[in-house]
Amino acid sequence: MQDFIWVGFVGAILALLFAFVQKGKVLKFSEGNETMQKIAASIRAGANAYLKQQYSSVAKVFAVVFIVLLIMAFATNGEMLSKFTPFAFLTGGIWSMLAGFIGMRIATKANARTAQAASESLNQGLRVAFSSGSVMGFTVVGLGMLDISIWFHLLYYVFGITDATTLGNIMVMNGMGASFMALFARVGGGIYTKAADVGADLVGKVEAGIPEDDPRNPATIADNVGDNVGDVAGMGADLYESYVGSILASFALSAAAGFGFAGMLLPMLLAVCGILCSIIGSFFVRTKEDASQKSLLKSLRTGTYLAALLSAALAAPLTYYTVGSWGVYISILCGLIGGCAIGYFTEYYTSDTYKPTQKLAASSETGSATVIIGGLSLGMKSTMASILIVSAAVIISFFAAGGNSSYSMGLYGIGISAVGMLSTLGITLATDAYGPVADNAGGIAEMSGLPEEVRERTDALDSLGNTTAATGKGFAIGSASLTALALLVSYVNIVESKGVDMNLALTNPAVLIGLFIGAMLTFVFSAFTMSAVQTAAQSRVGEVRRQFKEIKGIMEGKAEPDYAACVGLCTKGALHEMVAPALLAIIVPIVTGLVLGAEGVVGLLGGVSVTGFAMAVFMSNAGGAWDNAKKYIEAGHHGGKGSDCHKAAVVGDTVGDPFKDTSGPSLNILIKLCSTVSIVFSGLIISFNLMGLL
Amino acid sequence: MQDFIWVGFVGAILALLFAFVQKGKVLKFSEGNETMQKIAASIRAGANAYLKQQYSSVAKVFAVVFIVLLIMAFATNGEMLSKFTPFAFLTGGIWSMLAGFIGMRIATKANARTAQAASESLNQGLRVAFSSGSVMGFTVVGLGMLDISIWFHLLYYVFGITDATTLGNIMVMNGMGASFMALFARVGGGIYTKAADVGADLVGKVEAGIPEDDPRNPATIADNVGDNVGDVAGMGADLYESYVGSILASFALSAAAGFGFAGMLLPMLLAVCGILCSIIGSFFVRTKEDASQKSLLKSLRTGTYLAALLSAALAAPLTYYTVGSWGVYISILCGLIGGCAIGYFTEYYTSDTYKPTQKLAASSETGSATVIIGGLSLGMKSTMASILIVSAAVIISFFAAGGNSSYSMGLYGIGISAVGMLSTLGITLATDAYGPVADNAGGIAEMSGLPEEVRERTDALDSLGNTTAATGKGFAIGSASLTALALLVSYVNIVESKGVDMNLALTNPAVLIGLFIGAMLTFVFSAFTMSAVQTAAQSRVGEVRRQFKEIKGIMEGKAEPDYAACVGLCTKGALHEMVAPALLAIIVPIVTGLVLGAEGVVGLLGGVSVTGFAMAVFMSNAGGAWDNAKKYIEAGHHGGKGSDCHKAAVVGDTVGDPFKDTSGPSLNILIKLCSTVSIVFSGLIISFNLMGLL
Repeated sequence: MQDFIWVGFVGAILALLFAFVQKGKVLKFSEGNETMQKIAASIRAGANAYLKQQYSSVAKVFAVVFIVLLIMAFATNGEMLSKFTPFAFLTGGIWSMLAGFIGMRIATKANARTAQAASESLNQGLRVAFSSGSVMGFTVVGLGMLDISIWFHLLYYVFGITDATTLGNIMVMNGMGASFMALFARVGGGIYTKAADVGADLVGKVEAGIPEDDPRNPATIADNVGDNVGDVAGMGADLYESYVGSILASFALSAAAGFGFAGMLLPMLLAVCGILCSIIGSFFVRTKEDASQKSLLKSLRTGTYLAALLSAALAAPLTYYTVGSWGVYISILCGLIGGCAIGYFTEYYTSDTYKPTQKLAASSETGSATVIIGGLSLGMKSTMASILIVSAAVIISFFAAGGNSSYSMGLYGIGISAVGMLSTLGITLATDAYGPVADNAGGIAEMSGLPEEVRERTDALDSLGNTTAATGKGFAIGSASLTALALLVSYVNIVESKGVDMNLALTNPAVLIGLFIGAMLTFVFSAFTMSAVQTAAQSRVGEVRRQFKEIKGIMEGKAEPDYAACVGLCTKGALHEMVAPALLAIIVPIVTGLVLGAEGVVGLLGGVSVTGFAMAVFMSNAGGAWDNAKKYIEAGHHGGKGSDCHKAAVVGDTVGDPFKDTSGPSLNILIKLCSTVSIVFSGLIISFNLMGLL
Repeated sequence: MQDFIWVGFVGAILALLFAFVQKGKVLKFSEGNETMQKIAASIRAGANAYLKQQYSSVAKVFAVVFIVLLIMAFATNGEMLSKFTPFAFLTGGIWSMLAGFIGMRIATKANARTAQAASESLNQGLRVAFSSGSVMGFTVVGLGMLDISIWFHLLYYVFGITDATTLGNIMVMNGMGASFMALFARVGGGIYTKAADVGADLVGKVEAGIPEDDPRNPATIADNVGDNVGDVAGMGADLYESYVGSILASFALSAAAGFGFAGMLLPMLLAVCGILCSIIGSFFVRTKEDASQKSLLKSLRTGTYLAALLSAALAAPLTYYTVGSWGVYISILCGLIGGCAIGYFTEYYTSDTYKPTQKLAASSETGSATVIIGGLSLGMKSTMASILIVSAAVIISFFAAGGNSSYSMGLYGIGISAVGMLSTLGITLATDAYGPVADNAGGIAEMSGLPEEVRERTDALDSLGNTTAATGKGFAIGSASLTALALLVSYVNIVESKGVDMNLALTNPAVLIGLFIGAMLTFVFSAFTMSAVQTAAQSRVGEVRRQFKEIKGIMEGKAEPDYAACVGLCTKGALHEMVAPALLAIIVPIVTGLVLGAEGVVGLLGGVSVTGFAMAVFMSNAGGAWDNAKKYIEAGHHGGKGSDCHKAAVVGDTVGDPFKDTSGPSLNILIKLCSTVSIVFSGLIISFNLMGLL
């Protein structure tokens, strides 16, 4: 079977080619008038400057970790750590970075073009934005396939590692680099975008009373830069990690399940088939020139659902051909259906066409405190659907894949269901990544004074983006929890393969305390990321206030604010605040292991997976609902824009910003980073730990 | 050893006698002038009316559960459930209710007396309020000792159950009634008090701009009633449950650890010794007539620390005499020290004399959104200290008690450390329960127009109460997590004693999904309790607005508002909203067991303990910090009362109300109720579950 894994290269080339074609489509459009070009150039410059600085900060941390890994691997002659891992760590990081970077490049080129195209028609606007999203979506999956294929062939053919178990165990460690990079990108970008947003809103909208994206607001360019570095580059790195992580986790589980290389070929085939179906699906994303917002959503949905359905159909013969089990096929379906179901419930809880968000909007009648309480309880309540769906997916895919007779086969079922969930990532990510482009286009339309109707069209595109983003987050969170479970088991397999006997019972104090530490890590990590936004935003508020006061004539539009100062301040703030939470995620599992041993680490992974999942759903959904409740009021309910209700809702939205765009989405990565860090450092922890001394 | 358990009766009588003496001391004071008496009578009437209705609602639920238990026990002739359990369920509920009721009775008699005494001097005020708190504190521990002693002697001497294992397993089930009652009291009382508070604040303080406790506010009597039914009656039932639960859990672990009846005598002796030391300590709570607030706090601390120190010293010979192990003594010390340490960090995070709360107050400079973000992240960050302390207490007490050679002995160590933590509950609860009395006294002083200096004195007493309440909550939360772990293990022992072999490894999908469900239950339960406050508060806001509008002359003080309407509305609202969360706590563990089997239940207990603990700390501390940040601003910082900063801080305080007084403290009970429900229904779940069919 291993001879067929070259199919991964086919998938990679297909995806990258399609991305290239889409890029060409975007660039064919005009960037609009001079003002628009100038604004777009400022945003581009700000985003590039930020990413450049971010990468150079991250490079330092990567260098340190790389050296530590090198020492661990070579000083013990591969005993403590495979000699490949340090290099895989680097490549994983670089590809993940690249996935985000390319997505950001095209997004900063597509924003003004989308605004210009939207001045022709809604459909034209949609096409530019969606093409830009496609570039990112297909780049992510293409690079992911490439990374996995190259490493597989290197290890198998060049280094002659032909034992499936060994190969799987080495491959799964490759995830750490991608997770680590993703965490920096998500946290750093998330802090940047939300600090900019909160800062701009607090002084601009609330204090000075000028509209969003008003060129008089010094923070407005930084706000638009933030959309690109956070929602595009951060998300790209994040989903690259999810995609690669789910495939690698099933690699590691395949040998134990007795599927050998066939069980590794299957996720590759699923991914390639998903790429094909996504390409087909994306041809169906089109609408009439005079389309309504409703028909826009319909066209996006047609594309994604078509891709998912085609994938589901094609997966049947592929599964049967490779592992010869219909049960495994059911596991894959569980993933696909589970992802869609989580997406649906995410939409239910966060879209203003449903009751929960409407009720939240109504709670603004009694002030901002009740909006906050309402949003928090909505978010907490919404964990029920996601957790029940994931639980059902876990239990069904476990037993369907044969968990009753062979425990390892059941676990492979859980791992492959995550791959199923993410197989059509190409198109779901495209529909997701188009949102920030539309958001930017709106900003440019506003700043360059395009006619009202253009802004209305970009708003329609943007608001649609919120809905698709919710679905995308559903997939990311759902797959993260499944992958985390698969990684937890890989960890146990790897430790036990080194001859360590573990008591993993929940009644073992080391496991229990590990659980506690895992829950603690989730809460403290969320606290760090939230207070990072807070700190960064507060310094921003000061700067914006200073400019309003010191630069005469800003409010009359006579003098230009110092946009660059705000961009620079955001960059500095985000980079400064990004490091602590990221280090937390790498240090806590190692220290826990050194104190409590491998059993404690398993507890920690369980605790962080479970609490992190619940917390991620809670934060993302609460944030999304606050955002849409505000939009619902702005659409004319409960007094509309400028009313007291609106002001109360703005408070909710501001609190929701770090929830849904910084802390919430970072938790997915945290969960997986903890797992891969534990796997990579398992050799160290087995050799040295306090429990071993007792 | 069992012959000495009569010592429990001695402790009970001692505690109840002391409570009786303290009651006499309170009643000797004058209730003040006619207005004060009238207000106090209204509060008393409202509180009595509420509790009467609450008990009659709860009685119905108890009757249903009692019948179910009866059927389970007698239809299977004791196979599925001990025949004693249904009756123990009733007695546990009744005693827990009684503990809260007696505390509330005395508190509603002490409030006006405290106000009157405070008009003489601060010390006089302190003495009345503290005596009232002592009545509650010692009633709780006295009744707890009585309940345990009676059941022990009934089972041992009357029914001839002389096997330590069987006896321990029957006794531990007795906790369910107390937990169930406590949950109703905490949730119902918590909803009442916070709905009243939020309602009164939103319309009174924010909209109409009249001060707190202003007699023109129709919600003001209900607000004061709330302090009594929530912070007094609810807390009494809650801590009764903690106290009894910790002792019963160590009963259940004793036999397996090989300590037999000696291991049951030890917690009883510790409790009795704790009662004695608490009585001694309470004599040291006194201050000079012209005392400052600082010396007040010092006098309260002298009392509690003295009691703890004495207990620690006396515990050494007691432990050695009973179980003959110095290791177990270290476990007890772990509990005592751990409780104090959690108390200290709770104070650190929530008191305005430390940086975190001061920083939170400063974040009000940029508006209410940043206050909310700041408080949420403060609360999340604060979980670190509590979790690390509990983890250390668990691991040290496990190994000290001999966990390295005998697993069961280690677990007994964990159980007994919880008893150690709660041994001086008599005095810690007294310092805690005096707070709401002082709060009420302030309300009465304001409403009856006593001179400014009286209000200042009651404010000093009240603000001190916030600090001691924080310490009290530290003990409650810390002991809850230790007791929960002990109960989890009891559950496993009981299930395994029925011949069921369990795979409790974290890698077992049933356990993992159980963990997920446990986390979900925590989030959904918190959501329910928070939205209950929201719903109840919103109906209140409507009523207060209506009265301001329809009753002419309220604002001029010419017409009296319809206080009773608000009291009635609160009662109805709280009772209506109380049922769903309470049922959730009883139904989810049973359904999880029926679907996933006993292994899933163990996972659920782990998940709810870990996530529930983190969430309880998060919510309580965030709420406490918001409250004190507001008070800090009111004391003149950041612009003082009425400034924009103050308004922003009031939003934080309002969000914090359900956090710290409804959802947060209910979670402690939820954790233990889940455990005892699982234990009581273990026979049912073993006989019928879906996993058994696969």
